[in-house]
Amino acid sequence: MALIVQKYGGTSVGSLDRIRNVANRIKKLRDEGNQVVAVVSAMGGVTDKLIGMARELTGEPAEREMDVLLSTGEQQSIALVTMALHELGVDAASVTGRQAGIRTTGSHTRGKIDSIDPTMMNQYLSEGKVVIVAGFQGLRNDDLIHTLGRGGSDLTAIAVASAVKADLCQILTDVDGVYTCDPRVVKDARKLPEISYDEMLEMASSGSKVMQSRSVEFAKKYGVIFEVRSSLNDNPGTIVTEEHDQMESVVIRGVSIERSQARLTITGIPDEPGMSARILGCLADAEINIDMIISNIAHDGMARHSFTMHSNDLGKAQAALKPVIATLPASKIETEAGIAKLSCVGIGMRSHSGVAAKMFEALGEAQINIGMITTSEIKIAVTVDETQIEDAARAVHTAFELDKVPSK
Amino acid sequence: MALIVQKYGGTSVGSLDRIRNVANRIKKLRDEGNQVVAVVSAMGGVTDKLIGMARELTGEPAEREMDVLLSTGEQQSIALVTMALHELGVDAASVTGRQAGIRTTGSHTRGKIDSIDPTMMNQYLSEGKVVIVAGFQGLRNDDLIHTLGRGGSDLTAIAVASAVKADLCQILTDVDGVYTCDPRVVKDARKLPEISYDEMLEMASSGSKVMQSRSVEFAKKYGVIFEVRSSLNDNPGTIVTEEHDQMESVVIRGVSIERSQARLTITGIPDEPGMSARILGCLADAEINIDMIISNIAHDGMARHSFTMHSNDLGKAQAALKPVIATLPASKIETEAGIAKLSCVGIGMRSHSGVAAKMFEALGEAQINIGMITTSEIKIAVTVDETQIEDAARAVHTAFELDKVPSK
Repeated sequence: MALIVQKYGGTSVGSLDRIRNVANRIKKLRDEGNQVVAVVSAMGGVTDKLIGMARELTGEPAEREMDVLLSTGEQQSIALVTMALHELGVDAASVTGRQAGIRTTGSHTRGKIDSIDPTMMNQYLSEGKVVIVAGFQGLRNDDLIHTLGRGGSDLTAIAVASAVKADLCQILTDVDGVYTCDPRVVKDARKLPEISYDEMLEMASSGSKVMQSRSVEFAKKYGVIFEVRSSLNDNPGTIVTEEHDQMESVVIRGVSIERSQARLTITGIPDEPGMSARILGCLADAEINIDMIISNIAHDGMARHSFTMHSNDLGKAQAALKPVIATLPASKIETEAGIAKLSCVGIGMRSHSGVAAKMFEALGEAQINIGMITTSEIKIAVTVDETQIEDAARAVHTAFELDKVPSK
Repeated sequence: MALIVQKYGGTSVGSLDRIRNVANRIKKLRDEGNQVVAVVSAMGGVTDKLIGMARELTGEPAEREMDVLLSTGEQQSIALVTMALHELGVDAASVTGRQAGIRTTGSHTRGKIDSIDPTMMNQYLSEGKVVIVAGFQGLRNDDLIHTLGRGGSDLTAIAVASAVKADLCQILTDVDGVYTCDPRVVKDARKLPEISYDEMLEMASSGSKVMQSRSVEFAKKYGVIFEVRSSLNDNPGTIVTEEHDQMESVVIRGVSIERSQARLTITGIPDEPGMSARILGCLADAEINIDMIISNIAHDGMARHSFTMHSNDLGKAQAALKPVIATLPASKIETEAGIAKLSCVGIGMRSHSGVAAKMFEALGEAQINIGMITTSEIKIAVTVDETQIEDAARAVHTAFELDKVPSK
């Protein structure tokens, strides 16, 4: 008998039929002798509808009230899923974020989980009940309702799994697991049986949006091993865990791509202390997420900075930088949209050399020009023309033989 | 400056436009220098939709989960009304039943308010905020979400008014106040400026369903004076209060009618101790609300009992009584549907005689036959043929000159 925590997203509980399906899946686990805690999201569409009503009433709804409003979506789901379980003869009880003992900190609509007191959940488990937990929500120390922002239900599941000392945590989603590359782009992409937290984090920050980074970070911090798998079938998914010796021994675990990127380059920056901070500060104040950052000194002794960002942010970034640039007589801004980012990720890079060379060679053979290059300990990322990103992904995927199961 | 507690029902917050209207009404009170606490119901239709979903999932939804599900309706309303107030520049904060400190007892879906800790509401009031409270809900001592059943938001408003020591409690509804009779039946029915708790209770139990009896009982118990008035206009409503010397001095305060009644008579009951309890027990077990009860002994020495009930319950009542009747050889059941009840209510009856005589005379002159008769200290009720109920109401209303403002 194992204690399994599952998380079902909004699509999985998007209709009464799907709720029945979720109940059936939980019953099956229960019939196999497991204890089950399931974290559920709001029914697909409910949250958007509530946001729409709020926006119709006021341009900028107060975040405190958005938390009160949006947390009802998950509360409805837990009651409905529990009822569907009762209909199947499964003893079950719902718990809200508050009842699950989830205490949060931070500002409204962007809560962070601070602690979990699993007393009520443990009580129900000891009574033989399945426990259905509202994702995405908790209670702040000032007793106010608090939602956790994007990916909040994943975070709830990981945190609950840690609190109830689950044997396994399953994140059930609309993909089958984590692949060596997006299967829509690379036909022979392979589902990974296992991936390390660090690789998962690099994949997430490189466009493979299976999960938000903070849920993976939370899992890594508290050592929660979890599985990403489909809510639509019973295929095994991908286990996300600390790296260990029995993991498939590969140099590159996967390739991820991110489209719709843009580059912004500032030239003619005086090479003085504090200049980079001023420039990055402008972009941060304008709430622009920049991704790759490259700086160097040109032959004229002036510095140049290049950043990548989502192309939607390019105009905003240029406007935000105007005041700074105006104070620098030699400074100019160049921009380029229509680029994409390709990242190779793998903990094996730490102990293998020649990874970059092999990657660039593969891209060269495919006649693909490389723009910017950045590296971390377990990632090499390059920008290419967006029209070539799929060819680039296939070339690199093949070069590292990611379609083949590696020998141990 | 006064502290006013208002209650807005589901119709009053039934659309975003109506929510804006509620916000405007609250702003007006605020602008006049008052502090305001508003208790709101779920948007009209929301509760029924949620009940429909639950019933689609399971024949008998667990009441614990119904509470979790249905309480979300009011929680959505408080957030939306608060946002609408913000849009008008009014400082406001929502509180759920739990945050309003409403502790309850009793079984799920039929909670009773046990106590209120108004700390959070008082804090917000002292900060100059309007407080928007979720009606119909509280927290049980076992930390579970609890709804209060029919009329629960009225009850919340009365209890909150008591807890925050409000100067006035206004129940805003779709009627203008309490009338001497239903104005759709008696054209010259007059809106009452004041009515006593006891009269309001008798009117409520006699078909004038402005409010559920238990809210009035709660108000009487805690001495909460409240006003029933329209949410659609600014007309003064009816003040419900303890009887006092300055109240309009009348014998009859009002006439109420209840249609779709049925009579069930059991004859040939042995005149033995315990028989009535057995019969009434059968009806109670079948959850049939009986209203008028008349018993007497016929010329053959056998007892006969007559009850009235809603005609929808007649079949169920007959079925429920079958096993008892089967054990009584001389016993028979007679039924009559298509009757209605007319009640005259007034605290003045305590000190005036001849009220029944005057009432029966008025009915006699109008050629209306009286069926059953029951009386309480401040009420006389009779049954008449349903086709004659409107004529009966008009005849009695005129006989007691209820259309005229009484001299003090």
